[in-house]
Order: sequence, then structure tokens, then C-alpha cells
Amino acid sequence: MADNFADRLLKAIRSKRTPACVGIDPVYSRLPADIAGHRDLNDENDTESALDATLEFCRRVIRIVAPLVPAIKINLAYFERFYWEGIEGYYELIQEAAERDLIVIGDCKRADIGHSAEMYAKAHLADPDFADLDYLVAPDAVTVNPYFGLDGVKPFIDIARDQGKGLFVLVRTTNPSAAAIQALPGADGMTVCEAVAREVAGWAQGDGLVGSAGYSCVGAVVAGKDRESTMKLRAMLPHSIFLVPGYGAQGGGAEDVAPCFKSDGTGAIVTASRSVIYAYEDTKYLELYASEWEKCVEKACKDFIADLARVVSVS
Amino acid sequence: MADNFADRLLKAIRSKRTPACVGIDPVYSRLPADIAGHRDLNDENDTESALDATLEFCRRVIRIVAPLVPAIKINLAYFERFYWEGIEGYYELIQEAAERDLIVIGDCKRADIGHSAEMYAKAHLADPDFADLDYLVAPDAVTVNPYFGLDGVKPFIDIARDQGKGLFVLVRTTNPSAAAIQALPGADGMTVCEAVAREVAGWAQGDGLVGSAGYSCVGAVVAGKDRESTMKLRAMLPHSIFLVPGYGAQGGGAEDVAPCFKSDGTGAIVTASRSVIYAYEDTKYLELYASEWEKCVEKACKDFIADLARVVSVS
Repeated sequence: MADNFADRLLKAIRSKRTPACVGIDPVYSRLPADIAGHRDLNDENDTESALDATLEFCRRVIRIVAPLVPAIKINLAYFERFYWEGIEGYYELIQEAAERDLIVIGDCKRADIGHSAEMYAKAHLADPDFADLDYLVAPDAVTVNPYFGLDGVKPFIDIARDQGKGLFVLVRTTNPSAAAIQALPGADGMTVCEAVAREVAGWAQGDGLVGSAGYSCVGAVVAGKDRESTMKLRAMLPHSIFLVPGYGAQGGGAEDVAPCFKSDGTGAIVTASRSVIYAYEDTKYLELYASEWEKCVEKACKDFIADLARVVSVS
Repeated sequence: MADNFADRLLKAIRSKRTPACVGIDPVYSRLPADIAGHRDLNDENDTESALDATLEFCRRVIRIVAPLVPAIKINLAYFERFYWEGIEGYYELIQEAAERDLIVIGDCKRADIGHSAEMYAKAHLADPDFADLDYLVAPDAVTVNPYFGLDGVKPFIDIARDQGKGLFVLVRTTNPSAAAIQALPGADGMTVCEAVAREVAGWAQGDGLVGSAGYSCVGAVVAGKDRESTMKLRAMLPHSIFLVPGYGAQGGGAEDVAPCFKSDGTGAIVTASRSVIYAYEDTKYLELYASEWEKCVEKACKDFIADLARVVSVS
């Protein structure tokens, strides 16, 4: 049996001495001029040239951050935007990252029921079972939506158990309107996201899911928010690693994410996306490095790591 | 501005005199021997040959049902299973169906936030804005997951308004574990799925969304269940067409779906997937047509339509 995902992730975090994760959310219109200038057609209206430029940007970002962080999160939406070619590009990036020993989280937010859920789990989390694709690895983990309950999640759990992979179930997200569903108060005094957390806590304890460090391959997406509500979710999900979005561009800072960690500094991985990969749009970095966008990205990644280190230390 | 999606769907329903929709959920291992026998490699381990056989099956199903029903629903999970080639195949089927004047619902169950949600909406609902793909049409409507609240849905609504497209927001699903989330009782006496319905009802009334027949391009996925709870959802969502899954293989029958319709026979479209497309596995049809699988599918589709006609009549 493959090594438990949580153990692998914790090992990677220790090795890089940071629980920082860089999110890859590439938008063509924001690509650096350097890459835009190399486009043969300079054509945002052509999928192939727009995708080529986008992938070149992502590859270079991955190379910059690979020595610094244990994991990257690639949001599939930005690749689906380029149709089937974009999906192929997404897989190319996964291979690139895997070769550099990065843990790759495929941020695909899938869920369905029955056979459909199995198909999504096979498509997005399992390493390909087709002989012609046996050179490919799938992401180490994916994000999953909980609205169907366990039926939408179980096929992902089964693959995670068998293949040493992981999943992060959406529990609480950062966006303003999330509260309209996730913060609804329940008759039992729990909000919807707390009720989801209770479900996830049960799933995470399944046979063969918890690794040697006490964490399960079933994690949770939990956005930092007020300290009290986050600590409640942290206590409800003792076996789940939190994937914490919203650092940087989405408004969160190190203090907001601190309660996602346990007192020993484990239990969460924190993602910054736009604040790192588009650092060259930030005057703070522009003043330092002008148009050397890769230096801006590297410095922003290091600043992100340093900022996190103020509130959590990895031993 | 393009014609309102709800108006287009109602017109198609009147034209075919049935609110029946066939779901395309192709699983390679269940393909008819006829098609399996034509595979050059007979190779379920090769994406290309497995996908080719799968697409041939889907094309033939689409040709059979196109004269009979107003709409098909294609579940993207079964195509993602074949990686990027599968996505290209999904688009080929959409073109095939569109040429036959079928309304196509892309059952992709996407949702994310911010830019990511916009990317999903562009990728799955908007007709392509890349010049090299201007020959493609996207689905007429898609399914969307509500867990993020309006932020996850709004980009889809905006495209629906502008391009005469539609969306169906998951409200209540058929699967056993759905109740663990969707049926949670709220402090205000509403269940989670009723609270979602209340949200969707608000979204559906937005400017420019309601067509001439009083229905919005913002619909809802509502599984038939006990009569009382379905009637409550029907009353809460006066402007939304229900996409009703679960007819046939998932256990529902015409009586279960009847309360999804208003008294005038409008307000819902009912999907049967496996009970129609795999009819050749059913001894009832095998006895009639033996190995002529296409005749089995055609008869099962007609039986589905006739069964629905017992409880709802399209005027």
C-alpha cells in the first residue's frame, strides 16, 4: 500500500520548513510582458497561443517556488477555460511539479453521485488506469464539494486510501456570499459548515485513512475567519489537515490563519495564489526588481513564507 | 439579446409534447456488444479506442432520441474520465445534439468563487470566445453547485442572461447520503435544501432573467421525493424550471416526479439516463428485440415518455 497522504504532506512540510502552498490560478490578461512579448501571435483570441503563454508562465512559476514550498495547488478552472487543450496543459504542469517533488493539489471542487462520482474520482485523483497514459501521474490530492454528503466523496476516499492520495472537502470558504449557505444556523445550534465538519470528521476516521502522525488523508478546506469559529472547526476535525485558502489577495493574513494550526504547528497548509504569482503587479516588488517578474514572484513567495513563520513554526 | 433559455426550453417541450430528457452517462463496460465488436483493439486500456467506442454509442443514442425528446443531459464526469480527449469528445456530442435541435444540458456541477467561477462559467456555459473555436457551441444550460452561495453562481447567471443560456442549481439530489447535508433542519424551521431554494428563488428573479412565460433561466435540480416536501419546493421556486433527476434507474417513477410540475403541466423537465440508454440490458426489452440494442433504446425512450404522460400532459 502506498504511503499515507497526510504523512507525505507532513514530511514535505518539514523538509521545506513551511506549511506554505502556492496557488496556480493563471489569467492570460495578467501574464508578464516578458511572456506576452514572446507570443508568436500575441493572440488572446487563439486558444493555442493563449494557452502556450499561460503554460510557460506556470512552468516558470513552478520552477521558482519548487525549492521554497512543499506544495502547489492548481485550480483546474483556469485550464478548463482553454477547453480540452487546457486539460492536457494542466496534466503537463502536474508532471512538471511532480518531477520537482512538489505535492500537487488539484483544486477541482468536484462532486457528483454514484457512478458519476466514481468517474470524477478516477479522472482527477487516481493515477491513470489506461495503458497509453501510464506515464502520467494525477495530483496527490484534490478538493471536493460536500453538498451530496458522503456519496459524493466516498469514491475519492477509496482512491486516496488505495493510492496514497488525499482529498480536502470544502467546509468553509472565503467568499462573501458563502455565509448564505455555510453559516446558516441549524436547529441543533451548529451552522451548516459545522455540520459538514462533523460529517468530514467521521469520514476522516475511516479504516486505513489515518497515518502515523494521526492525520487522515481526508482533509478539509477551511478559510481563516474569526479566531473563535476557526478554533471550533479545528477542534471538531482533529484528524484533518486544513487547506487554508485566502492568504494574501483574498484578504486573509497570518493572524487569521493561525488558529487553523494545532499548538504543535501542524494541521494546516496555507495557500497564497495571486499575491505570489502576480507579485510583479505590486509596486512593492516592482520598485525592487522592475520588470524582472520572476524575482518579484520569488521574493513574494519568500515573504509569504516569512509572514507565516511569524505565527507558526515548523519543527 | 438572445432568446430567454426558459422560453426556448418550454418551446422545445411543447414541440415534442413531452418534458422528458435523456441523460447520457456512458460507461465503457456497459457498451452494447455491437459497438464493442467494432473496436479495432477491443481495448478498454487505451483511452483512444475506449473513447471512440463510447462516443459512437453516444452519437447513436442521440440520433435515436433526438426525434422523441426536447433535451438531453450529458454528464461531463463520464467524459473527463477519458482526460482531455474526453472533453473534446463531449464537445463533439454537444455539436451533434445541437445540429439535431436538441436542448443540451451540460451536467458539470461546477462552482468556485471569484475569478475561478468566471472561468468555469466561460468554459462550460458561454459559447467559446476564442476565434479558433468559433465553430463550437457550448451547452444551452449547465448544472451548478450552491455551496458557495451566489458568488459561485453569478458568473453563470450573467452568461445565461447575455447569451440566452440557462443553469440549474442543485437544490435536492436523489442519493441516500444527501440528507446528511441537504435535509439538515435549520433554526428557522427550513431544511438546508429549502434554504438553498429560497436563495435560488431570489436569484431567479433578477433583472432580465425571467422570460415571457414567467420562468427564469435560473432553474433548480430537484429530485422527486415525498409529495409534501416536493410541493413545498415547487411553491418556493415559482420562476424556476426543475431539472428532475432520478427517473428510472435511480428509483423514481412518474408519481414521484408529478409534484415537480405546476398544475398547468409546466415547470419541470424529467431526466432518465441508465433506464433508457442501457435498455438493452433489461430483459423486458431484450425479449422484444434481442440484440438490436438501438430498438431497445428507442422503445425505452418511448416508454419513458408514455409513463410521464400518465402524470403530466403538455398542452
